[in-house]
Amino acid sequence: MKIYRYPTKNTWADLVQRPVLEREEISGLIAQIFSEVEKNGDKALIDFNRKFDKANTKSIKVAEIEIENAINQINEDLKQAIQQARENISKFHATQNTEVQKIETTKGVICWRENRAIEKVGIYIPGGTAPLFSTVLMLAIPANLAGCKEIILCTPPDKNGNINPAILYAAKLCGISKIFKTGGAQAVAGMALGTESIPKVYKIFGPGNQFVVAAKEYAQRYGVAIDMPAGPSEVLVIADQQAVPDFCAADLLSQAEHGSDSQVVFITTDLTIFNDTIEAVEQQVKVLPRNEFANQALENSNFILLNTLEEAIEFSNLYAPEHLILAMKDFEKYISKVQNAGSVFLGNYSCESAGDYASGTNHTLPTNAYAKNYSGVSLDSFVKKITFQHLSKEGLQNLGKTIETMAEAEGLFAHKNAVSIRLK
Amino acid sequence: MKIYRYPTKNTWADLVQRPVLEREEISGLIAQIFSEVEKNGDKALIDFNRKFDKANTKSIKVAEIEIENAINQINEDLKQAIQQARENISKFHATQNTEVQKIETTKGVICWRENRAIEKVGIYIPGGTAPLFSTVLMLAIPANLAGCKEIILCTPPDKNGNINPAILYAAKLCGISKIFKTGGAQAVAGMALGTESIPKVYKIFGPGNQFVVAAKEYAQRYGVAIDMPAGPSEVLVIADQQAVPDFCAADLLSQAEHGSDSQVVFITTDLTIFNDTIEAVEQQVKVLPRNEFANQALENSNFILLNTLEEAIEFSNLYAPEHLILAMKDFEKYISKVQNAGSVFLGNYSCESAGDYASGTNHTLPTNAYAKNYSGVSLDSFVKKITFQHLSKEGLQNLGKTIETMAEAEGLFAHKNAVSIRLK
Repeated sequence: MKIYRYPTKNTWADLVQRPVLEREEISGLIAQIFSEVEKNGDKALIDFNRKFDKANTKSIKVAEIEIENAINQINEDLKQAIQQARENISKFHATQNTEVQKIETTKGVICWRENRAIEKVGIYIPGGTAPLFSTVLMLAIPANLAGCKEIILCTPPDKNGNINPAILYAAKLCGISKIFKTGGAQAVAGMALGTESIPKVYKIFGPGNQFVVAAKEYAQRYGVAIDMPAGPSEVLVIADQQAVPDFCAADLLSQAEHGSDSQVVFITTDLTIFNDTIEAVEQQVKVLPRNEFANQALENSNFILLNTLEEAIEFSNLYAPEHLILAMKDFEKYISKVQNAGSVFLGNYSCESAGDYASGTNHTLPTNAYAKNYSGVSLDSFVKKITFQHLSKEGLQNLGKTIETMAEAEGLFAHKNAVSIRLK
Repeated sequence: MKIYRYPTKNTWADLVQRPVLEREEISGLIAQIFSEVEKNGDKALIDFNRKFDKANTKSIKVAEIEIENAINQINEDLKQAIQQARENISKFHATQNTEVQKIETTKGVICWRENRAIEKVGIYIPGGTAPLFSTVLMLAIPANLAGCKEIILCTPPDKNGNINPAILYAAKLCGISKIFKTGGAQAVAGMALGTESIPKVYKIFGPGNQFVVAAKEYAQRYGVAIDMPAGPSEVLVIADQQAVPDFCAADLLSQAEHGSDSQVVFITTDLTIFNDTIEAVEQQVKVLPRNEFANQALENSNFILLNTLEEAIEFSNLYAPEHLILAMKDFEKYISKVQNAGSVFLGNYSCESAGDYASGTNHTLPTNAYAKNYSGVSLDSFVKKITFQHLSKEGLQNLGKTIETMAEAEGLFAHKNAVSIRLK
C-alpha cells in the first residue's frame, strides 16, 4: 500500500497514474492467429484449443445436450440467484429504451431518430481463474432487449473440452443458442471473420486477457466494432467520518482480488477512518482465498488522506475511476459533482459487488481513465440510431435558399443544384 | 457507371463492396509527426504549417481580431443561412437529451443513469477543396448543447496564414473561442497530446484526408476517443416509378462531387426511370464545376435495376449506405424495413443536401458499411452516461443472498464478503 497524507495538488497528476503494465509485443502473433483462422476456419480453432487450452474438441459448437446437462448441474440456489439478477438487469436496461420523437424544425421539415438493433453481436467470456457467468447476463440481456437477431457467445473449453455449466446456464436463460468452444485471440478472430460454424458479427463485447484485448483492437481493421478499450479493473472509495472501515476494506478487497494488475484507491478526510481502514484491509486480506492477487494489487494501490470531501471528488474526477463508492452520509450533495466515473455506489450499503452482480446496473465499464470519454455498456451499445427526415415541397421551399446559399459558399454546386432543380 | 439489370442475389455481396482505396503506408510518418509534436509543441505545428501548407504562421492560435475581421467579410445572406441552419440543428439535437429515470429494481435498490458532458473535445475541420463551415455547425452545436466545457477547433491555414472566414464565423456563432491554425495529422496530434497553446482533449471529431484518418486512429493509443471510423462519402437512392429522374440525378451528383473516391448507388424497379436517370446524370454532370471529381466517382458507381422495392431495401441493408434516399411514394411502408443506414431522406423533396446543411439532422455519419454497427454523430457523442445506485440496508438484505451465491460460484470470496460483512 502506498500512503499519502495531504498530498499537494501538484502531485495529483502522478497519483492518478495507473500502474504501467508490461505488455509483451504480441501484434505479430495476433496477425498470425487471424490469418490462420481466416484460412482454416473451424479447423484452426480446434487446433488452437489443443495448443493453447490443452483441450480436445471435435466440434466447436456446443451441443444442445451439453447445455441441458449443464442446467442439471446447477443447484437451485444459484439458479434462483441468477434469475433474480437477470430480472433486475432486465428492469434497469429496459428503462434505457428511448421513444421516437419527431420534430418539425422548419414548417414542412420533420426530423427524427429511430433505433435499430445491431443485427449480429458476439460475446466473449474468458475462462481462466473465475467463470464469469455474470458477464453473460450483463451482455446478453441488453443484446436481447435491443432486439439483436444473432447473439453468439465464445468461451474457451477446459482441459476436458467442456464449458463451465454456469456459463451455459446463464447463456441459455438469456436466449443465446449459439455457443462456441474457443477462447483468446482466436475466438475474437472467429467472430470477426466468421468460420463454417461461427457467424461473422458486427460488434464484439466482453473482457479478456491481453491477447483478447489486442485481438479486439485488431478486429476493428475488419470493420467490426468493439464495446470499449480495456484495462484492469479498479475502484475508488471516498469515505467521510461516518463510513465503516470494515465495509470500506471489504469493498477495496473485492476489487483487489480480481487480479494482480487491479488498482484500488481509498480517500478519506478522517484520520481515524483512514488508519482503521488500512488496518481492516490488512486483517481481511489474510483470510481471502485469492489473497495472492489481492496483495499484489494492494502494492500498487493508494490510500490518501485529504482535507475536504470536495477535494476528494476533485481527485476522483481526475482519476476517473471505473467504480466509485461514496461511503458518505451526504452523498446526495456530491452526485452532481461526479464528472468522470463508470458506475457510482452511494452510501454505506451500496457495495460494489451489488452492481457487479445483481442491482441491475451493468458491470462492463470504462477502466484506465476511459470514464472521461466512454460510457459503460448499456442498451445503447447494442443499437444504432438512424436519422430520418421528410421535407414536403413547402418544407424545401422554406429551407431552399438557406441550403443553396451554404452549398454555394462551400463551393459545392451539385449540392445546390439538388435544391434548385426541385424548386424550378 | 456500372450498370446491372436484375443481378441475381448471389452477386450482391460483390456489388455492395466499396471501391478499394489505395492507401499509402503512412503509419511511420504519423508516428514521426506525433513524436515531433510531443517534443516541440507549438513550434512543431508552426514548422509543419510551413512544410505542408506553405503557410507562415507566427502564432497557432487565431486572434480575436482575426475572428472579428472574418465576421465582417461574411455577407448577410450567408449569415442568415448559417443562422437558420444553426437553429434547426439546435432544435433537432435538443430532442436527443434524455431525462434521468430512476427505477427500484428490488425494494430498497434504486438505479439510474445521468449524463455528463465529455469535458474537453476537439473538432477538426479540413481545408482543401471546400471550406466545410457546415461541419463546424454539425459538431459545435451538439458539443455546446451537451455542455462540453472546452470545445476547440483546428483547421489548416491557407498560404497567407489565414483561416476561411466562414469557418471562423460559424465557430464564433457556436461559441467556440479557441481556434488553432494547424491541419492534417499534426492537428490531431496537437489535440491528442496538447501543446503550449492547444489544450489536450478527450475526444476528437471531424472529417479529413487519409492522414487525418490515420492520425485519429493513432491518437487512440493516447487514451483519446474519436467520433467514428471514416471512409469516403456515399449515397444510395431507391426510386419507384413516381420518382423524378432529374431529382435523382441531382442527388447522385451532389454526392459524387465530394471527391473521386465517393460512391453513389442508384436502384429502381422501373426501366424508364432507370434509363432516364442515367441520361439525366450524364447531362447534369457536364455543367458541374467539380465534374472532374464527379466523373471519377461515377466510374465506381452502380446503377441497378431490381424487380421489387422489397429487394431494393434488402440490397440497401446489405450495402448499409451513409445516406439513403427513398424517392418513393409509399416510403412510409418501408421505414421500418430500413435496418442499416446513416441518415434517410424520404420522398421526392428530401434531397440529401437538405440534411447536409439545414434540415437539422447531423451530417457526420457512418460510411463504408459502418452503418451496420455505428450511429452518426448526435448529442450522445458528446456525453457519457454514468450509472448510479443506492441500496438501503433493506435493499442489501433483499439482494444479499443473490450476490453472495453468485460471487461464491465465480470463486470471488472478497466480493461475497463485501455483502456478508454488512449483513452480519
